[in-house]
Amino acid sequence: MEKNVKISILCQTYGKLLTENQLEILEDYYNNDLSLSEIAENKKITRQAVRDIIKKGENKLFEFEEKLGIMKRTLKQEEQISTILLELTKIKEKTSDKQVAEILAHIKEELNCLV
Amino acid sequence: MEKNVKISILCQTYGKLLTENQLEILEDYYNNDLSLSEIAENKKITRQAVRDIIKKGENKLFEFEEKLGIMKRTLKQEEQISTILLELTKIKEKTSDKQVAEILAHIKEELNCLV
Repeated sequence: MEKNVKISILCQTYGKLLTENQLEILEDYYNNDLSLSEIAENKKITRQAVRDIIKKGENKLFEFEEKLGIMKRTLKQEEQISTILLELTKIKEKTSDKQVAEILAHIKEELNCLV
Repeated sequence: MEKNVKISILCQTYGKLLTENQLEILEDYYNNDLSLSEIAENKKITRQAVRDIIKKGENKLFEFEEKLGIMKRTLKQEEQISTILLELTKIKEKTSDKQVAEILAHIKEELNCLV
């Protein structure tokens, strides 16, 4: 996974455990594609200070993931759900029962909003 | 949900974000049913110190849950999975196709280890 995608997911997952300032700067850098200089100007701090805050924030996010593993678990769940959705399609192909088709559609909906 | 059940789940979910000492004392109190006095004796601290550590640890767990909501999400997922399992049973009752039955059994297995 690319680093910016990974940091974005980690910000979504653990962002509330960071300080507001840390989260803003990480999001500006990784989601909004602002440069260190632009963030430094907006925040009225030095580029080096921005760099330090990003590094510290990243380390905290990695530490949370190492301890709680929510991103890893969610990605695994998404993969398992894709497998189940494929298997449901196989069942659909094997039956012409309308009620079964309805139940299958319902299960698919539920699976799609599970994670 | 009973408080001790709730604290046990929160300890499983966020325990690694507590200090080792906090987690040990919370587990002794809520999972292993040790009294404040017993914990105080084992740890060679006062009952009041044990009480303070428990209170502080609980507050941290509640704060993590308020910010990340993992317990709530997991409980909701478990509920949704129960619903899906019921619906799969309905499909099974409506079909005599052996291959469909096999796929259903496989999906059930996967769902049971999803959360």
